[in-house]
Amino acid sequence: MRASAVRALFAVANRPEVVSLAGGMPNIADLPLDVVANTLSDLVKTKGQQAMQYGSGQGEPMIREQICDVMALEGIEAHPDDITITCGSQQGLDLVTRIFCNPGDVVLAEAPSYVGALGTFGSYQCEVVHVAMDDEGLQPEALRAAAQACAAAGKRAKFLYTIPNFNNPSGVTQSLERRKAIVEVCRELDILVVEDNPYGLLTLDAEPIPAIRSLDEEQVIYLGSFSKTFAPGFRVGWVLAPHAVREKLVLAQESATLCPPVFSQYAISSYLANHDWKAQIVTFKDMYRARRDAMMEALAEYMPEGTTWTEPKGGFFVWVTLPEGLDTQAMLPRAVTARVAYTPGTAFYADGLGSRNMRLSYCFPPPDRIREGVRRLADVVNREFELHQTFGLDQSPVHRRISGPGPEIN
Amino acid sequence: MRASAVRALFAVANRPEVVSLAGGMPNIADLPLDVVANTLSDLVKTKGQQAMQYGSGQGEPMIREQICDVMALEGIEAHPDDITITCGSQQGLDLVTRIFCNPGDVVLAEAPSYVGALGTFGSYQCEVVHVAMDDEGLQPEALRAAAQACAAAGKRAKFLYTIPNFNNPSGVTQSLERRKAIVEVCRELDILVVEDNPYGLLTLDAEPIPAIRSLDEEQVIYLGSFSKTFAPGFRVGWVLAPHAVREKLVLAQESATLCPPVFSQYAISSYLANHDWKAQIVTFKDMYRARRDAMMEALAEYMPEGTTWTEPKGGFFVWVTLPEGLDTQAMLPRAVTARVAYTPGTAFYADGLGSRNMRLSYCFPPPDRIREGVRRLADVVNREFELHQTFGLDQSPVHRRISGPGPEIN
Repeated sequence: MRASAVRALFAVANRPEVVSLAGGMPNIADLPLDVVANTLSDLVKTKGQQAMQYGSGQGEPMIREQICDVMALEGIEAHPDDITITCGSQQGLDLVTRIFCNPGDVVLAEAPSYVGALGTFGSYQCEVVHVAMDDEGLQPEALRAAAQACAAAGKRAKFLYTIPNFNNPSGVTQSLERRKAIVEVCRELDILVVEDNPYGLLTLDAEPIPAIRSLDEEQVIYLGSFSKTFAPGFRVGWVLAPHAVREKLVLAQESATLCPPVFSQYAISSYLANHDWKAQIVTFKDMYRARRDAMMEALAEYMPEGTTWTEPKGGFFVWVTLPEGLDTQAMLPRAVTARVAYTPGTAFYADGLGSRNMRLSYCFPPPDRIREGVRRLADVVNREFELHQTFGLDQSPVHRRISGPGPEIN
Repeated sequence: MRASAVRALFAVANRPEVVSLAGGMPNIADLPLDVVANTLSDLVKTKGQQAMQYGSGQGEPMIREQICDVMALEGIEAHPDDITITCGSQQGLDLVTRIFCNPGDVVLAEAPSYVGALGTFGSYQCEVVHVAMDDEGLQPEALRAAAQACAAAGKRAKFLYTIPNFNNPSGVTQSLERRKAIVEVCRELDILVVEDNPYGLLTLDAEPIPAIRSLDEEQVIYLGSFSKTFAPGFRVGWVLAPHAVREKLVLAQESATLCPPVFSQYAISSYLANHDWKAQIVTFKDMYRARRDAMMEALAEYMPEGTTWTEPKGGFFVWVTLPEGLDTQAMLPRAVTARVAYTPGTAFYADGLGSRNMRLSYCFPPPDRIREGVRRLADVVNREFELHQTFGLDQSPVHRRISGPGPEIN
């Protein structure tokens, strides 16, 4: 399938009759709109001249202080001066890649890994080398082997890109022991860790595990975001980086945008100051937990034997593996016809793997729609499986990587 | 002077006792804060779920339609589908450079040219070749000669970067005849024109001249912005580009930020729909006209013989040339000590020229402060000139390019 065909499919998936388990849009229906409306109105009246003016290339001091409080919830001790605000954490990833990578450089990343990150690495002509995961996340010894293989091939692995909490797309979380071991390997081989943590506070079953950044200040660049704990439309993310990197980030930010969105920073800063944002996160967690549970129950009820899936402890995503021989990319048009959509696994690999996998998201549709979506999907998988058993199909074909749904796709 | 020293100086220039003629911050004191506050409050209450959600990588359809109306004021006929929203027009410039340029490619630009553009071109390792200007703007024959010299040296000039209206820093405006001749040369040599037009609607003496884009749809990429006609803090700019370029821009935008600031787009769209934004621009123009006139009068009254300056018909900036032998970069610390700041001319050349020049901005301080600032500056220039006549100084030294003031410097 061409990129344009995938886009067309996802556009169809956005129609109301289709249950979309494809996108990654947070459900912000529970936000208190009256509180936000009053906060913004007061902001404009009292600080409008500053909030609507150009601002600092690094980001406004006030919100950088508040971000330190947010990160403290995952064990991070940070100074506001080491934070650079970005236009969503996607831009943080873009600026970090711009600073560190030349064409041909290697980035190490989980197998599978976030489609938007693979796109950014590709746009800078980096080579992505995937590192195996298991139920506890990235495998330290696989990481060591991958880095050493790169070095042996005369290539430099510039950094490890990892989503340790509720990995997108796999839903897997790194245990604390794993995090320690990963940092250890990275220190030893002098590889930076880029820790992407958009979902970290959306734990559904337990308290957050300390961030990798809390284990090492010098080896780790941390990417954070308000997109999932507040709202994505303001486009405010941040990078916490060692001092020398931070200086380069600010220069890169000035070159890229002059300054990140100023009004957005004031808006979120006011929201954090005037609203019980921690209670709001609890509300979000309760809502996502019901959806996650609905998806887990429906998968167990409807999916045919031989299908497996991960059990996320938070975040938005479940990673499904279909029986041998099925091809989720080829199946997608039939699924959309059956009024259910997902993201094929090939979107999350730079090397064309993932054809038996799909990412299902439980973040946006309500629980009853999730159950209905999984039911429809299971029907499609069952029919596909029967066809395969009757006529045979290609064994796990290797595809060119497709792009995921655009950001506006729910 | 090192970049850090220049930054330190501009930081001092931000102190209230210093009259800063250095920065480029618009004066937004005349914005109706109550109108904006109510607009945003209504927006959140009625469309908060969409305005705070992820949006289109290309930008929201509604504001792209309204932008067509804005551009029509300068003679541009455009379709909303050819517009890509960016995080300020600086990001437009960044994405265009990313798409077109490889390290070592040449960008043609006016001599002098916008410091932020030179920074972006430098960050992509482009070589900037300056093209001479006169009172009517960029000289077409100099453009032809520069492009041909590049070709003869085996280099490819990827595009011409130009600010045709009230050029930053020179304040010069291209006549319509010039625009036609420039497009003609660019068509003939197959060089794209990147037309950067942040100030175009801030005409102080006459109606706007038709944009270069209005003369050619295929050869011109147009960069627009709400930073000077509304407010910069929302970070909403746009790129109007031929269709094939627009497709690449959207992919680049998704890779860079997923989507440009959504709430900002809704905010500006609501402001445009609910407020007489054209009357607001007239208010801005009246305010800037008084400041421009104050600066012109003060320059004529105080500046020593042998000093010349441009006479801007709009925008924010005047370009001053000091008598032979003086050095504005060396003089800056003495000026700041005398409680006045400006941006040295070397910031606006990639090749170290501009040492006798300075950019004065009249956008931010009120008229009486502008007069006082120019008076102080003239004292400094006079003392410098006397020293030079008594002891001699280097003749127009060539400097390394310095960076300009950061965006937050007024």
